[in-house]
Amino acid sequence: MARDSQDTKRRIFEAATAEFTTHGIAGARVDRIAASAGANKQLIYAYFGNKRKLFEAVVAEHVTRVMEAVPFDPADLPAWAGDIFDFFVAHPEIPQLSAWHSLEPGESKHRITIIEEAIALRTRQIRKAQSAGLVDRGLGPAELLALVNAIARTWAVVPPERNPRRGADARVLKRRRAAVIEATRRLALPGDP
Amino acid sequence: MARDSQDTKRRIFEAATAEFTTHGIAGARVDRIAASAGANKQLIYAYFGNKRKLFEAVVAEHVTRVMEAVPFDPADLPAWAGDIFDFFVAHPEIPQLSAWHSLEPGESKHRITIIEEAIALRTRQIRKAQSAGLVDRGLGPAELLALVNAIARTWAVVPPERNPRRGADARVLKRRRAAVIEATRRLALPGDP
Repeated sequence: MARDSQDTKRRIFEAATAEFTTHGIAGARVDRIAASAGANKQLIYAYFGNKRKLFEAVVAEHVTRVMEAVPFDPADLPAWAGDIFDFFVAHPEIPQLSAWHSLEPGESKHRITIIEEAIALRTRQIRKAQSAGLVDRGLGPAELLALVNAIARTWAVVPPERNPRRGADARVLKRRRAAVIEATRRLALPGDP
Repeated sequence: MARDSQDTKRRIFEAATAEFTTHGIAGARVDRIAASAGANKQLIYAYFGNKRKLFEAVVAEHVTRVMEAVPFDPADLPAWAGDIFDFFVAHPEIPQLSAWHSLEPGESKHRITIIEEAIALRTRQIRKAQSAGLVDRGLGPAELLALVNAIARTWAVVPPERNPRRGADARVLKRRRAAVIEATRRLALPGDP
């Protein structure tokens, strides 16, 4: 029984990820999520409350997965940025969900606790690494964190004009990955002017 | 008569900008645009064809305005990035429309000609500036252009967790602007290692 419930939640999570990635929050339909998950719509409401809360649960779960798969390393931000780049190539739905979250914050800006906490923690970690001389001090820790994040996802959610006509092939991806690492190195590595 | 028609088009443009910024392409309603513009819905279809084409016309017009207001300068990318940052602070709807365009490319990736042409032209200009020794050659011209773009819009469309609780005040904006310019300098200025 407990396992059945876990299976159902996993199917709902996967169906909700696909639905929100394609349609965003306003455009997502809980009926379609229910049908695709083979679950009862009322059950989804019982588990998650409402569509907005389901979205936030889905985003929070993906954030947790990213943090586990690509641990943040303030002492080697270039490598971290390269790994995040790879992760987003493999999981394009994650930066897309994040973009929906940015565009559709809802009436009263919905903050997701795990994201707020990760930003606060990482900012402190960078500040500490700057004090220890492991990270360049030319940029403030909050600004550096935001910039490295932006650099790592430069090609993650882009208008169609920014992608090569036949999609990004291995050669293009390799060049972009190297550019992300080199750009982060120039921002983060101590000793750079 | 011709002036009336220009006035109507301007009102439709403004109403469409607001509607698409808030609701995206799928979520936008042509009835709401017509009501807000005080124009006839059929007239909008006569002018623009359909909702998707209206969106593309709106984006193309904003892109033209950005290019006129902040001319691209391959020889001084840091200053250009700072000016783009300012422009997006003053006109947050523009990066938001661009984000919708990225998330909702539609069935068959809708490319907007003026954007494709601007990217191609700017890439050539950067390559030329690199050859002339005005821009660092450590990154390829296409990658450098995309990265500087991403850096300039680091805070333009962000999840609510990335903004200070009471909105970005003048002090925060000043620090972010300086960080955008400094980050671009490190990527673009020749002579940096």
